[in-house]
Amino acid sequence: MKVILTLSGGLDSAVLLWHLLEQKHQVCCLSVDYGQRHYRELTAAKNLCMLADVEHKITDLRGILSLFSGSSQTSSEIAVPEGHYAEESMKQTVVPNRNMVLLSLAGAWAVSTKSDAVAYAAHSGDHTIYPDCRPEFTEAMEDAFRLCDWHPVKLLRPFLYPVPMSKADIVKLGAGLGVPFEETWSCYKGKEVHCGKCGTCVERREAFNLAGIGDPTIYGD
Amino acid sequence: MKVILTLSGGLDSAVLLWHLLEQKHQVCCLSVDYGQRHYRELTAAKNLCMLADVEHKITDLRGILSLFSGSSQTSSEIAVPEGHYAEESMKQTVVPNRNMVLLSLAGAWAVSTKSDAVAYAAHSGDHTIYPDCRPEFTEAMEDAFRLCDWHPVKLLRPFLYPVPMSKADIVKLGAGLGVPFEETWSCYKGKEVHCGKCGTCVERREAFNLAGIGDPTIYGD
Repeated sequence: MKVILTLSGGLDSAVLLWHLLEQKHQVCCLSVDYGQRHYRELTAAKNLCMLADVEHKITDLRGILSLFSGSSQTSSEIAVPEGHYAEESMKQTVVPNRNMVLLSLAGAWAVSTKSDAVAYAAHSGDHTIYPDCRPEFTEAMEDAFRLCDWHPVKLLRPFLYPVPMSKADIVKLGAGLGVPFEETWSCYKGKEVHCGKCGTCVERREAFNLAGIGDPTIYGD
Repeated sequence: MKVILTLSGGLDSAVLLWHLLEQKHQVCCLSVDYGQRHYRELTAAKNLCMLADVEHKITDLRGILSLFSGSSQTSSEIAVPEGHYAEESMKQTVVPNRNMVLLSLAGAWAVSTKSDAVAYAAHSGDHTIYPDCRPEFTEAMEDAFRLCDWHPVKLLRPFLYPVPMSKADIVKLGAGLGVPFEETWSCYKGKEVHCGKCGTCVERREAFNLAGIGDPTIYGD
């Protein structure tokens, strides 16, 4: 199949890229510049696509930044919360309706190139924090993709469906596929190295530990 | 309710704006600059919002223009087809996945401002040409909106649901509400006056005729 993958540059979507390629799909990757503080993830996305030798587009959505004014990821006035990923404070890292926006743009690319599917890397751990990673949300979007054009588009989310996977499962899968984890970027702070303290850093470390896989990430703490 | 309306500047969404205001909703309007040839519709949208005294944002999506490369509305290399709206040739006026993109952005605004609903003006005549105006598509999107955030968002499409309306019905409704039809813009060619020949001009004229309402539009032919 010809697949458009939303690639953030983080660990999950990188593993999904390698997974789709191993399944012999033709993959094109879409990343979005929405003015996020952790701009480094876009550099990571670019490097990952070069290593995987796939087409990559970075789409500039900074023009809609003002719509997302409530999030710490796009506002320099709101501090990035530290602590465990699943805590209440992490909710302020949510960019409003981000996944519907990202998926709709990937869908536009898919429709215009007659691609067969859009893929994204939501996993079973995401939906405690991110409402738009809930399985029910992805099912509604699957229906919408089937109907958005005369040419139906599939919505692949193999880390949620058919078998829900945890981030530790994804690390294991990625290790088996030879994913260059050191090229992926998770930290919301976007400094020189991963801070080790913000929600995604805590979650990343925990996943490597639970998976029993050596973590190549350099953490600032 | 607090409602985010996707306002193109055309006849249908203008009538929906007046309709929502008559129902005492608080309305904010979102228009999108995606490099469309008929840029005049954005000027129309701006004027309509001034007349209705509602907040208006125009979002710049020209950065994603390259994703939409197959449409006559964003490519100067593809001619705008003339003839009846329902003809096969009109399909090339479709911007890939446009409604999902527009609705997702309106949803981002709705989520970030804790608005109650997103509204759009799809009507029963649209879906012969536009797959993303089909009732089934709007039902899938309604589900997705309910789940995209912890704060659920409604999707209003009163010209499709609960009672499907034709464009002639919309003209009748708008006439009753005092909508300034002469301020709306339909023509895909985007010249000084409506061409009278392209699909949307033909459809616009037909709707006024069928409704038995005087058409204030100046047509070039």
